[in-house]
Amino acid sequence: MEEASSTSIEFFFRPRSIAIVGASNRPDTPGYVVVEQLKKKFSGRIYPVNPKYSEVQGIECYPSISRVPGDVDVVVLAVPAKHTISVAEEAGRKGARGLIVLSGGFAEIGGEGLELEEKLRSIAREYNMRIIGPNCMGVIDTSTGVDTFFLPEKRLSRPSRGYVSIASQSGALLSMWMEWMNQQGIGLAKAVSYGNKLDVDEVDVLEYFAEDRETKTVLLYIEGLREGRGRAFIEAAKRLVAVGKPLIVLKGGKTAAGARAALSHTAALSSSYELYRAVLVQAGAYEVDTMEEMFDIVKAYTMIGSARGNRVLIVTNAGGAGVLATDYSSREGLDVVKLPGSITSKLRSILPAYAAVYNPVDLTASVDEEQYLEVLDLVLAEDVVDIVIAITPPHPPGMSGRIADYLAKIHSKYNVPILAVSIGGYLAEAFRRVIESRGIPAYPTPERAAKVAKALWRLGEVLKEASK
Amino acid sequence: MEEASSTSIEFFFRPRSIAIVGASNRPDTPGYVVVEQLKKKFSGRIYPVNPKYSEVQGIECYPSISRVPGDVDVVVLAVPAKHTISVAEEAGRKGARGLIVLSGGFAEIGGEGLELEEKLRSIAREYNMRIIGPNCMGVIDTSTGVDTFFLPEKRLSRPSRGYVSIASQSGALLSMWMEWMNQQGIGLAKAVSYGNKLDVDEVDVLEYFAEDRETKTVLLYIEGLREGRGRAFIEAAKRLVAVGKPLIVLKGGKTAAGARAALSHTAALSSSYELYRAVLVQAGAYEVDTMEEMFDIVKAYTMIGSARGNRVLIVTNAGGAGVLATDYSSREGLDVVKLPGSITSKLRSILPAYAAVYNPVDLTASVDEEQYLEVLDLVLAEDVVDIVIAITPPHPPGMSGRIADYLAKIHSKYNVPILAVSIGGYLAEAFRRVIESRGIPAYPTPERAAKVAKALWRLGEVLKEASK
Repeated sequence: MEEASSTSIEFFFRPRSIAIVGASNRPDTPGYVVVEQLKKKFSGRIYPVNPKYSEVQGIECYPSISRVPGDVDVVVLAVPAKHTISVAEEAGRKGARGLIVLSGGFAEIGGEGLELEEKLRSIAREYNMRIIGPNCMGVIDTSTGVDTFFLPEKRLSRPSRGYVSIASQSGALLSMWMEWMNQQGIGLAKAVSYGNKLDVDEVDVLEYFAEDRETKTVLLYIEGLREGRGRAFIEAAKRLVAVGKPLIVLKGGKTAAGARAALSHTAALSSSYELYRAVLVQAGAYEVDTMEEMFDIVKAYTMIGSARGNRVLIVTNAGGAGVLATDYSSREGLDVVKLPGSITSKLRSILPAYAAVYNPVDLTASVDEEQYLEVLDLVLAEDVVDIVIAITPPHPPGMSGRIADYLAKIHSKYNVPILAVSIGGYLAEAFRRVIESRGIPAYPTPERAAKVAKALWRLGEVLKEASK
Repeated sequence: MEEASSTSIEFFFRPRSIAIVGASNRPDTPGYVVVEQLKKKFSGRIYPVNPKYSEVQGIECYPSISRVPGDVDVVVLAVPAKHTISVAEEAGRKGARGLIVLSGGFAEIGGEGLELEEKLRSIAREYNMRIIGPNCMGVIDTSTGVDTFFLPEKRLSRPSRGYVSIASQSGALLSMWMEWMNQQGIGLAKAVSYGNKLDVDEVDVLEYFAEDRETKTVLLYIEGLREGRGRAFIEAAKRLVAVGKPLIVLKGGKTAAGARAALSHTAALSSSYELYRAVLVQAGAYEVDTMEEMFDIVKAYTMIGSARGNRVLIVTNAGGAGVLATDYSSREGLDVVKLPGSITSKLRSILPAYAAVYNPVDLTASVDEEQYLEVLDLVLAEDVVDIVIAITPPHPPGMSGRIADYLAKIHSKYNVPILAVSIGGYLAEAFRRVIESRGIPAYPTPERAAKVAKALWRLGEVLKEASK
């Protein structure tokens, strides 16, 4: 057991105690914010370390790590790069298991930064410590309250507790995504920013996410793997998918110009994108093209799960939106399925003459909201459809918002994923919110829903395959 | 003169008088809403027509068109399809110049609907009247106050007055876009929904928009042209572009499945998409793939105009976002230009060691907001860049919002389009709003900004070419 836990990075997320070197009473500085966040949320021991203070935010402060009375599991370094070596040395002697080095000024600036990293690496090896960073935001764990993201909540609101975990080579993107998830109501389990990846990298984090019970879906932003980690990455990703956790990946540095930018960003030598693409496919990861798509998909997956197949039914009250949804779905490889005559004739008998009973089913602007319920109940009773795209703009007089209940009812009855689309301005936005409050994901445009529908189908296939 | 104006459809937008057949006192019915809107905004004469009322919303109501005392320029038909024939006949006898037939139940339902259209067509020919519709929303003109969109403002807010005009084969999409533009603060000149295009179609509307002084940019949603209108469409589109008005087109029914859906939607036989694509290219139109892209582009174009070329400078405070912006820009055919040594060495001298001075210029999370101003002022002073993508997430401590002023200042000094990107949640959204209030378009993701940058470059090329 001792052996196993010494290789896992779980202790970074569930430490008994955390020392913050560079702890501060000056508001909004990193050393202040980390203590502030831990004080608010973390139930383990907090040891501020700074020779300038006897207390920090009401907690006793120590002049050095060696003077901390108890054991220290994790040391957070919020000090300039040049001071990190002596702090790491002291942390090692104190018996710390891991360092989170927030400071920048290492490999990403080259020269002496590279030397500093080399020194940190040898100290970590000597004392058997793991390192997250340097040049990173560190860790947020919504269940244990660990939070080293050194931006105050007024600048960076955190998402609520949930089941999505994220690993990111970019701390800044990860920060922005915290606020994004907060606004979108997507719950977070863990977030890890490992910056220059002196030690802990994608592989360690994916391995941990596979075993972590709080994590049910994983998002990854990656620019480049460390050399020689390709095989281990594939294995870690496969394991993740095999235990039923989708891995959704956004790759930075896909073009030659982007790869050059990545080099100066995280010193990541990104190989050809084709190679990465092959690795991602082999690993069973689902690659997205944009961050918008990434969150659109994770929202749907966490709300309603994956789909059994690619047969889509489109129901709309707006013909043009139905046409566009058909185009986009078709292009994403979905089958806008031809409904059998037995179904269309039943639809014909319950719907007014002006309605179109093929797929898309077009209720037109003369729609009565209840028709959505009737149509879906009728079609889903037969096994001809795997996903529903329900286009529900709020503008026709017959739309009152009951659609939210109807969609929820149908979803719980048939357990087929339903994606709502509500196009427009403030009113459409309000409609989307009401629909999502009933557990059905809602999107502002048909193309975004079609991309999500494709992902739910593909994720279903990958998970089915992996569990064999 | 008489001859010219009899072919133009201008009178639909600037009529001296409008009769509304089917005018009503029952709130939220089409016949109520049209009178309500006209009463509020239209300064010409309004003649409600309905044998059931002596007055409608305080305006004298007439039992039939023939009983209206003055001349009638335009007749709006808000009556069931079967009554439209006799009304059209009467309107013809009264000397009306045009009909706006809001009613559905024509070609889109086939059979008797087709016959009704044939009858309407022959009456219109007999009396030399033009027809918009049937099965449409009609017209909104923000300068004259004509508004036949029969949804009340509580359901469908209208955009403010501006310079963008829209023609759409889908009345429902156009309605949703009214609300979208209202929310996004994109000003509208004219909106036209012509439904089944019994008479007035894309060609007529584009011809009118070319001569209309209020219209500076045109958006078009099209499923299919009427047979034999391809050549005229190309000519009308070319004329529009030749007078300096970009034409931005969203095509529905691009895939086989989508084309089938379009057939049942507007009875539009859409030929192969490749053919349309060729037509659009020849016409100098800019085809977008999604409605989101369409409004992203039109927002930027109306705020800051087109670009002289494709050389992009990316300035960021977040490395990962810079990498992604580089990827997307590069993929859109933009040149993330290599800055000359003379510029990078100047940047090196004014920026801290941790900043990256190549393109993207990465100010990192330690950014001082003023650095954006300094960098842009330094780079734009040389002629090496045609477009700027400024990635300005609000989260780093050095970001206060002054960036909005800085970007506006740089834009007015160098007249180079600047696109801001602010990724995140509520705070990022607020930042985008502040930035847009200073006249700089702002987007939530780098990929959306890159798509817009490409469009500003391509629109610049097309307009330059057309004006030769």
